[in-house]
Amino acid sequence: MSRFLSQQFRGKEGYKLGERPKAVDFIKLNANESPFPPSPKVMEAVASADLEQMRLYADPHNSAFRQSIAESLGVSVDQVLADGGSDVILGYCLLAYGLDEPGFLFPDITYGFYRVFSLTYGVSFREIPLNDDFTINLEDYRGCGRHILIANPNAPTGLVLSRDQIETILRGNPDSVVIVDEAYVDFGNESCVPLTAKYPNLIVIQTLSKSRSLAGARLGFAVSSPEIIDDLEALRSSFNPDSISTVSQIMGCAAMKDEAYTRACTGKTIALRDSVAEEFARRGFTVTDSHTNFLFVSPPGISAAAYTRALKERRILARYYDGPRVRDYVRVTVGTESQMAELIRQTDEILADYERSLARESCDSALV
Amino acid sequence: MSRFLSQQFRGKEGYKLGERPKAVDFIKLNANESPFPPSPKVMEAVASADLEQMRLYADPHNSAFRQSIAESLGVSVDQVLADGGSDVILGYCLLAYGLDEPGFLFPDITYGFYRVFSLTYGVSFREIPLNDDFTINLEDYRGCGRHILIANPNAPTGLVLSRDQIETILRGNPDSVVIVDEAYVDFGNESCVPLTAKYPNLIVIQTLSKSRSLAGARLGFAVSSPEIIDDLEALRSSFNPDSISTVSQIMGCAAMKDEAYTRACTGKTIALRDSVAEEFARRGFTVTDSHTNFLFVSPPGISAAAYTRALKERRILARYYDGPRVRDYVRVTVGTESQMAELIRQTDEILADYERSLARESCDSALV
Repeated sequence: MSRFLSQQFRGKEGYKLGERPKAVDFIKLNANESPFPPSPKVMEAVASADLEQMRLYADPHNSAFRQSIAESLGVSVDQVLADGGSDVILGYCLLAYGLDEPGFLFPDITYGFYRVFSLTYGVSFREIPLNDDFTINLEDYRGCGRHILIANPNAPTGLVLSRDQIETILRGNPDSVVIVDEAYVDFGNESCVPLTAKYPNLIVIQTLSKSRSLAGARLGFAVSSPEIIDDLEALRSSFNPDSISTVSQIMGCAAMKDEAYTRACTGKTIALRDSVAEEFARRGFTVTDSHTNFLFVSPPGISAAAYTRALKERRILARYYDGPRVRDYVRVTVGTESQMAELIRQTDEILADYERSLARESCDSALV
Repeated sequence: MSRFLSQQFRGKEGYKLGERPKAVDFIKLNANESPFPPSPKVMEAVASADLEQMRLYADPHNSAFRQSIAESLGVSVDQVLADGGSDVILGYCLLAYGLDEPGFLFPDITYGFYRVFSLTYGVSFREIPLNDDFTINLEDYRGCGRHILIANPNAPTGLVLSRDQIETILRGNPDSVVIVDEAYVDFGNESCVPLTAKYPNLIVIQTLSKSRSLAGARLGFAVSSPEIIDDLEALRSSFNPDSISTVSQIMGCAAMKDEAYTRACTGKTIALRDSVAEEFARRGFTVTDSHTNFLFVSPPGISAAAYTRALKERRILARYYDGPRVRDYVRVTVGTESQMAELIRQTDEILADYERSLARESCDSALV
């Protein structure tokens, strides 16, 4: 830190990303990336693009990309904002509506970016505890007097609220902005996008990083009322209007147009997720009811931290959060079938090792 | 605007971009883009990239890209921050050092982003008038007690301070951050990057959008002391650590490594700029001493606004700023030789039209 840094940013810690080792000999299940390549149409679109045009600024309005989103979701283009990843859009939302009191309300266990961003940028917020089973208590949000930010499905718990439940929150908070972060919605859930027609205070945020296999392209979008989109456009036009590169805009269009491919990929992930969840449960793990492309599991006997470490020694990366209430759990991305088979095989060995060490310990103490 | 927007952002206007018409039948001289395609090595790098890897998040530390910058400029990698365009980095700098009083000092006539960003995001600043000839009065910056932000060469004037003059500012302000925005430095000027070894309070910002023909890839970087780079990394890691797409990182590396190509392109632009400046001067235009890839010219007789409009009718886009002291000038990018020949040809016609209309008027009034 330099001696010049503004007071507001002193002693703040940035959002901690999942490890991204360079070595290719890890099975990487720690960042909820898609195991599938982007749509072949994405590749074709890039291959046929005239890259000499990279000398020119990209379209700052992301017109073609926004059009492809509007068509895919059945909304009008003035209801759509696009930017370089959904985090950026979430950041603009937090700034746009969270600098004045009373600011935002979000669950205590959710995507860590909300808290880190708010602390860093001086956004006012309050965290509200989830129930003991990680579910959201809708009563907590009724007429709460704050803007609301909910990841649905939630991360890292994987649990989901139905569209009706979100509508209950909307009905109870007509004078607040309600943001629904749908990063994982495509893994078998109801999107709240249709509710934007009825609730001008609703913002739905999605990303192309998960279900559309484009984490490396940095693409996200928001769907809301035209007034709210105007607010957010004003912020992005003063921070970084040229946020999406020409190539990423091309990729984004192609990906949004190939819904069949997206559905094929997410279908495979959903089926595999449910079967791996059963495998974990059979081995005595506590497994939340995940509606995403990851599982949130608590191992039997062995601590979650030790299980994560053991997986890493066996070249499998999972995500561990050392925080209250979640430190008994590990988050693992649903990868390919062979990766999941390897995960279960290694898990069996880790559990067997653990049993052996327990037996040795009790044997040792019997000898003493 | 929605009724929810935070007070700070109400009634603010975003940065106004140059027009970006879709029609290809305009000669586009309004955004200081390069007329040359990116280096052939950039194309090769993209063609040989494994785009299936777009399913994974990009390297959030931009390690390879930062390494290529460090090597190209002869600094260490912990002195380099990279992000999705130099505007983003400028934004982080303004936030990092400008939220506390007394904030920033910058010229009244300079890159408009500084003012718009500061107003939007609550950065404290004061603008100091340039001299009547658009030069900077170094005395204004001596021990000014504020952080300093200077575009060098300046835009839209094109005028430049020598490295010695910047060092005078640095010597006079050891307790302020001094930011030198070198977006146009490659067009024949001395960079202040070597001064970062001596002045830990200096931040030099560059972009790949101009001299390296990659406006569409969104790439910029800062060179400073490791402490300052730490400050800025903390901000970006809480706003958008994944700011540069995988493809743009690949393009950036290739472009930084092909200095010979960059120098060949900038050499052509410099030679053409100087000859077009002479053409304008010969026709009675006032022409500033531009050290960039654009010319800032004031037409004889006809107003700058009318000249810009007439150019547009003739399918040439130039940039006009309707502000005090600059409204007599037009900014035109130095394009290809044939574009410049067309610019001069159309300018001659516009001036001839103007002469004819003057003659008609005086004839009319003689008849009255």
